[in-house]
Amino acid sequence: MSDQKIPDYLAKNEDRFLEELKAYLRIPSISTDSAHKKDVARCADWVAEHLKGIGIDHVIVEQTDGHPIVYAEHCKAPGKPTILLYGHYDVQPPDPLELWETPPFEPTVRDGKLFARGATDDKGQLFAHFKGLEAHLQTAGELPVNVKLLIEGEEEVGSPNLTPWVVANKERLACDAVVISDSSMFAPGMPTLTYGLRGLTYFEVTVQGPDHDLHSGLFGGTVPNPINELAKIIAQLHDHDGRVAIPGFYDDVIPLTVEEREQFAELPFDDEKFRKQTGAPGLCGETGYTTLERKWARPTLDCNGIWGGFIGEGAKTVLPSTASAKISCRLVPGQKPAKVFELARAYLESLAPDTVTLSFLEHHGGDPVLTDLDNDQVRAASRALKKSWGVDPVFTRGGGSIPVVATFANELKSPTILMGLGLDDDRLHSPNEKFNLECFYKGIETSAYLWDEL
Amino acid sequence: MSDQKIPDYLAKNEDRFLEELKAYLRIPSISTDSAHKKDVARCADWVAEHLKGIGIDHVIVEQTDGHPIVYAEHCKAPGKPTILLYGHYDVQPPDPLELWETPPFEPTVRDGKLFARGATDDKGQLFAHFKGLEAHLQTAGELPVNVKLLIEGEEEVGSPNLTPWVVANKERLACDAVVISDSSMFAPGMPTLTYGLRGLTYFEVTVQGPDHDLHSGLFGGTVPNPINELAKIIAQLHDHDGRVAIPGFYDDVIPLTVEEREQFAELPFDDEKFRKQTGAPGLCGETGYTTLERKWARPTLDCNGIWGGFIGEGAKTVLPSTASAKISCRLVPGQKPAKVFELARAYLESLAPDTVTLSFLEHHGGDPVLTDLDNDQVRAASRALKKSWGVDPVFTRGGGSIPVVATFANELKSPTILMGLGLDDDRLHSPNEKFNLECFYKGIETSAYLWDEL
Repeated sequence: MSDQKIPDYLAKNEDRFLEELKAYLRIPSISTDSAHKKDVARCADWVAEHLKGIGIDHVIVEQTDGHPIVYAEHCKAPGKPTILLYGHYDVQPPDPLELWETPPFEPTVRDGKLFARGATDDKGQLFAHFKGLEAHLQTAGELPVNVKLLIEGEEEVGSPNLTPWVVANKERLACDAVVISDSSMFAPGMPTLTYGLRGLTYFEVTVQGPDHDLHSGLFGGTVPNPINELAKIIAQLHDHDGRVAIPGFYDDVIPLTVEEREQFAELPFDDEKFRKQTGAPGLCGETGYTTLERKWARPTLDCNGIWGGFIGEGAKTVLPSTASAKISCRLVPGQKPAKVFELARAYLESLAPDTVTLSFLEHHGGDPVLTDLDNDQVRAASRALKKSWGVDPVFTRGGGSIPVVATFANELKSPTILMGLGLDDDRLHSPNEKFNLECFYKGIETSAYLWDEL
Repeated sequence: MSDQKIPDYLAKNEDRFLEELKAYLRIPSISTDSAHKKDVARCADWVAEHLKGIGIDHVIVEQTDGHPIVYAEHCKAPGKPTILLYGHYDVQPPDPLELWETPPFEPTVRDGKLFARGATDDKGQLFAHFKGLEAHLQTAGELPVNVKLLIEGEEEVGSPNLTPWVVANKERLACDAVVISDSSMFAPGMPTLTYGLRGLTYFEVTVQGPDHDLHSGLFGGTVPNPINELAKIIAQLHDHDGRVAIPGFYDDVIPLTVEEREQFAELPFDDEKFRKQTGAPGLCGETGYTTLERKWARPTLDCNGIWGGFIGEGAKTVLPSTASAKISCRLVPGQKPAKVFELARAYLESLAPDTVTLSFLEHHGGDPVLTDLDNDQVRAASRALKKSWGVDPVFTRGGGSIPVVATFANELKSPTILMGLGLDDDRLHSPNEKFNLECFYKGIETSAYLWDEL
């Protein structure tokens, strides 16, 4: 295939690609919110129809106990490698809505960036592969490898139904490599292959004091206040060195190697630039580690939400019955989500005074992963990235979690290529999520080349 | 007037009284919620019309910068004492709505109790006086004293417009005593005169870390989490003895006298019964004080609300930009709301790390009060209470705040009679607020006698 065919095809069609992505982004496929169940199903159908439209051979929508899985096969290269492309069509909730400059489900281009919930995570990145496949099919007539596509609608809620489906369909999914674009490049213009991801434990805790809300004047000073008690508990979840204070939390952590720490240190990373990107007055974290080490390779604990008492406008002198927090831990290789949850629960119980009761609700977890870099598929992906971006990729770890990567490693025994097309400032899970159009178009080009290189 | 006339009139009309109170309670006059501004105004008009209907001479609705004040005069006893009756027609928000057994603005009688927001605080108690006035007017033809009524719609938000109105209308309001029924009896069947109230400082604090919500995977462990930081701050607001840890907080507190502590100890109060009433697993509070001392005469600090991050259904791995808490202090005689707020603000600022910023929003405050018991008006109220209940009243302090009492003391120089008709288990400010019908009817009777005794 002539080297110019693909760039020409992309240049000719980029406006259409953008309009198609916008249509995809308009569907509010919020998997965690049961009110959007129909939208999630509609989004699955949209993906399936789109794949059929670009010429993918065999496309099905599989119903699950939760949201549907879209599965497709295009296997017309006997004897050639088989690649499984994984992605997800569900998105995070858009809250807080009032902070969006344009509505989350009305995709809007400003300054070369496409703003919408899911723009990068993961609709935009996945759609770049759809268009890469289309470009290859349209310019070369057929794919040089066998491609399977597995696209779920529950990534943002921990893939509860994907894992059993993968286990049950192990042979059908057999492949030589898994390709996932659901992470970030290290920096603009620096194509990146990610070889490690953090895992996740996520739970809610509710502190109950009185069994009904009380008047703080008539009862204040005599009964436990669940907000104050919850605050005391949360305050004891870290020690003075910024380490997580849960006993046993670090027991299973596989430490960073000296070589990795050296590699991290060589990457062009500037703390002050990073701080500015967050808008925080200062950075902080576990003593003894750099920012990159903290975000990629050290386990952490964060409160993701807290609520209790009166949170409306004005003043209400209530002494509330309960206060709750959503708490999550990012885990690193060696740690197990279920064990960390049990350690956390035991520690929280030990911190609570006997004037209150605690209850727990466990949400999804995910195993951390470290993938193998020494194989042909990773080398092929490196070549595709170099061809589209003009520079060699860098190898990094990531702070986020893609729970299914551990499932693929355990069940399919195939190497996973984590080829992020987004950027760290894409505001994933935040208001004003965006995808740089350069990343989108380069991503399509990379994907179009990838199938040849593989 | 024959001793039987009033009880007869009450017995004959009690069903109508109840229906009228229900109509009054159906108006959602939530003063703190701007969405209910019209309801509050409608409630003021309802009160004014009702007063005219029972024969009160001169009734006006005074507009203010906030909610209206209803003012009335019925001064037809030249040379006789003038009594100012104060109450409020506004109510607390009904949240959390889902915990109400019957809707807060659909008054419902169950088991001899009337359930509704405002049933006791303060619509029910105030309305008992309306019916007491009516009963007296209907049975005796005229009142033996001069009565002024001052009924505001901003008590639950700290009376911001009442105070200047009182100052501006000092001469018009001149009186020999102020009567307020906006507190509790010590126990069922124990009529009570309250001689002390706690004051209030109320503010919100917001902790900001990043300037937008971040993905906890991509940023967790490297930037300050405002929820965790807010929790650390709140955890340091009390010491291990349950004392408020704000430096200077206790400096101006007028200590309880030995005599008061003895009187409190003589009252029939059972900690375990009180604990059961709250439903909390245990009581707690400042070391060295009894429960009654803690609730009536010691200053306290409580979080009334907390919020930050994702508080919807499910899991969202957000590292939020801000977290906020509503915090209030109940103050005792000697303490000043403004000073306590400044002490609190300075202490909170000192606790915050330099990786976050704090901002404050001050809500209403109110001065604590101690009133004089040695005067004719208190003795008259004691006789009225004994006549209706059959026993002598007890003298107590109260843990709640009625900010305007301090204003009356300062501006009108008249003794205030705090004659609570409610009970401590009336769930003021909580779901399922109620008013025992016995308290309502005895309250009407007490009010009907009061004018003669005064």
